Amino acid sequence: MAKAPVLTPQAEDFPRWYQDLINKAELADNGPVRGTMVIRPYGYGLWERMQQDMDARIKAEGVQNAYFPLFIPQSYLTKEAEHVEGFAPELAIVTHGGGKKLEEPVVVRPTSETIINEYFAKWVQSYRDLPLLINQWANVVRWELRPRLFLRTSEFLWQEGHTAHATYEDARDFASRIHRHVYADFMENVLAMDVVLGRKTAKERFAGAINTLTLEGMMGDGKALQLGTSHELGQNFARAFNTQFLSKEGKQELVWQTSWGSTTRMVGALVMMHGDDSGLRIPPRLAPVQAVVLAIKGDEAVLAKVREIGDRLTAAGVRVQVDDRTDTPFGRRAVDWELKGVPVRIEVGPRDLEGGTAMVVRRIPGGKEPVRLDALPDLLPKVLEEDQALLLRQARERREARTTDVRTVEEAAEAAAAGGWARIPWADLGPEGEAALAEQAVSVRCLVAEDGSVPDADDAPGNVAFVARAY
Amino acid sequence: MAKAPVLTPQAEDFPRWYQDLINKAELADNGPVRGTMVIRPYGYGLWERMQQDMDARIKAEGVQNAYFPLFIPQSYLTKEAEHVEGFAPELAIVTHGGGKKLEEPVVVRPTSETIINEYFAKWVQSYRDLPLLINQWANVVRWELRPRLFLRTSEFLWQEGHTAHATYEDARDFASRIHRHVYADFMENVLAMDVVLGRKTAKERFAGAINTLTLEGMMGDGKALQLGTSHELGQNFARAFNTQFLSKEGKQELVWQTSWGSTTRMVGALVMMHGDDSGLRIPPRLAPVQAVVLAIKGDEAVLAKVREIGDRLTAAGVRVQVDDRTDTPFGRRAVDWELKGVPVRIEVGPRDLEGGTAMVVRRIPGGKEPVRLDALPDLLPKVLEEDQALLLRQARERREARTTDVRTVEEAAEAAAAGGWARIPWADLGPEGEAALAEQAVSVRCLVAEDGSVPDADDAPGNVAFVARAY
Repeated sequence: MAKAPVLTPQAEDFPRWYQDLINKAELADNGPVRGTMVIRPYGYGLWERMQQDMDARIKAEGVQNAYFPLFIPQSYLTKEAEHVEGFAPELAIVTHGGGKKLEEPVVVRPTSETIINEYFAKWVQSYRDLPLLINQWANVVRWELRPRLFLRTSEFLWQEGHTAHATYEDARDFASRIHRHVYADFMENVLAMDVVLGRKTAKERFAGAINTLTLEGMMGDGKALQLGTSHELGQNFARAFNTQFLSKEGKQELVWQTSWGSTTRMVGALVMMHGDDSGLRIPPRLAPVQAVVLAIKGDEAVLAKVREIGDRLTAAGVRVQVDDRTDTPFGRRAVDWELKGVPVRIEVGPRDLEGGTAMVVRRIPGGKEPVRLDALPDLLPKVLEEDQALLLRQARERREARTTDVRTVEEAAEAAAAGGWARIPWADLGPEGEAALAEQAVSVRCLVAEDGSVPDADDAPGNVAFVARAY
Repeated sequence: MAKAPVLTPQAEDFPRWYQDLINKAELADNGPVRGTMVIRPYGYGLWERMQQDMDARIKAEGVQNAYFPLFIPQSYLTKEAEHVEGFAPELAIVTHGGGKKLEEPVVVRPTSETIINEYFAKWVQSYRDLPLLINQWANVVRWELRPRLFLRTSEFLWQEGHTAHATYEDARDFASRIHRHVYADFMENVLAMDVVLGRKTAKERFAGAINTLTLEGMMGDGKALQLGTSHELGQNFARAFNTQFLSKEGKQELVWQTSWGSTTRMVGALVMMHGDDSGLRIPPRLAPVQAVVLAIKGDEAVLAKVREIGDRLTAAGVRVQVDDRTDTPFGRRAVDWELKGVPVRIEVGPRDLEGGTAMVVRRIPGGKEPVRLDALPDLLPKVLEEDQALLLRQARERREARTTDVRTVEEAAEAAAAGGWARIPWADLGPEGEAALAEQAVSVRCLVAEDGSVPDADDAPGNVAFVARAY
């Protein structure tokens, strides 16, 4: 008799598979207030590793961290017309504080462009103060009617960068640096994610931006997920908040700005891009635990050996956890590590010890084979790098296999409905075609230039639109 | 003619000195919503260094980080009677979300005992799940009528630890470990802070706790500041949320809990414990920049030399910044580094180069002397450790000098009013004396046993009360 699967199979019901996995791998729970989320230690550990790596990359670009208040006066939001229009439907409003009704209600930040400009306007006096490069790690709130853990939650965690520059070109180049050298580099090289870098259409742009750069990934079901965005804000917020500087030439000028963000949604993307019917598959460079050494049974020789292997692998630079909880059945523990996506399991029982070997089980390619104990410290780092590369390759191959080149709106909608992406010349689609697709819940994820680079304008000749259903 | 002081002198107006310093050292600004705070990059850099160090210590105790929602249903707060009474006057309430009035208003977390218990009750089934040791780094909101930057703000950043244990003894020991091995050790050895470890009286206890352990520091004006607390919650929240486990003996029992927190207030404490009339003095082990190498003038030889010194000191393990902004007058830059409290300045001008020396200016003891360039890499680490020790010694000596042993309520109130602390046997004070002191805005900061240890009970024989005005 076949065992009942641990998770609903992806092919049967992908959203259900996702929920099952989030729950059984102990990544997160639903919060009590609709749309909120409890991030459990294993899920938070993934986010912490992402934060550490990203934070170092952001600082390497000369950016400093700071912290701006959670509460924003409602009047600030209204200063930039497109911005308030974009965010008004999602706001959470505090009306009472300290037992009294507030004179002016305050908004729980959905993003911080407005409050940050209030301070940039005070801090920036002269061209010497530019560029001003600030980032914050924070929680934000956007009321969510159709919440899904990690992907769309009423509160989420993120970093939001905000910069001010003396010239349009400097701002544009900085937004692009973040897009490519921070976000894309991190996602490809640490998260092993396949991402398409492009430009949002006017319809999909951030509320208040003159240009939005995006990274789009294909999930296991063929849908698209936006993984990070970097915006050129032009002088829109500078005008609204009068953020001026004295130029080298002695003139008062408005600053040029950028903002850019990436969120806990990346954890959801990790699940949906790399996960399979047995659970998560964590890229080794990200993994808090790269290898788990399991004692199959609780005899002394086995316990001593798993600890020794743990120590030797730690010394070899591998992030190891020893699992000697032999009061829990081995099978249950093995399934649990499989669910949690730890890249390598090293299983040790009395029979293995006799042969001087351990069973090495690789989560990412699958498969197991016995390995001599003294070969483990050399083998593991190689295996981990191989598996890191494999994950990226598999994701890339899936996207290529599931992307169709088309020429009409109908064909694009069909490809999206069939669980894939369509590529269509923007000249063949245009804003009208985009509107027609929207009626079928299909969107233009981004525009990409003919040579694969990020175009400078929506209407640059040769632009190709990537079209898909999206989370 | 004497130069105008950079800051209001401490002796003239301590609160004004504090405000001046926070402002001129660019630590923080007032936020637009009353009581909120913008933490500027230099202030946030101090907090980040605190976080990193504390986070490692917390994890070394076996605690895992997680994240619980900002929004808590109002009904949760009311489940523990003392808890709601303590926090109700400080709550911020969200009444509208996503454009609609909410069916049940939600509270912006003032602390997370209630929401965390809701999940502990689900996660804990058996004694095998205990102890459950969780921490989160988060923002919290407590509406503040008399805000002061870092010390009392409507929103602040903190870590809050929450643990569940099988026995009273295990919970008690854990609360004590955090109090001594995490908080006190960090504050003394990294922040160079002199702290008194004690027990809060029943009046001063956390709302919902059966015991609160505290760390109290004396600020430059002789007032006390509570620097961190670790609470034994007993079974109060477990009872309210039905957080039960199946014991080894097969019985359903309520867990025993702790919670403990430390906040951005520590930045304010750092200012007020170590600052002087020239600005901050940052303990070297904390300092993001331990030594700044200043080019006095912009000639090529000087600029090349400051960069070389910077590289050599970095190689010697010192956190260095090179200041070659010679388009700003040297004097202004020197005052600014003094304000920011960087422990060591190394000033290099053309004349120094001729002599093969640099001027080493020590912020903590004060004073300057020329040092041969090749002696710097050996000298700096020694100087930094000396100055770290000096800061702690100075703080301790000040507390001892300004603490008076008394026997009556009147004497205690007098000592506090004179800008110091009083030590009085708890048997001579008691709850009635404590109430009498409260009328004069003087409080019992903590109880300490005769031998200096933390007492097990308010009424243990020999307990001494530390009495002071407090922030």
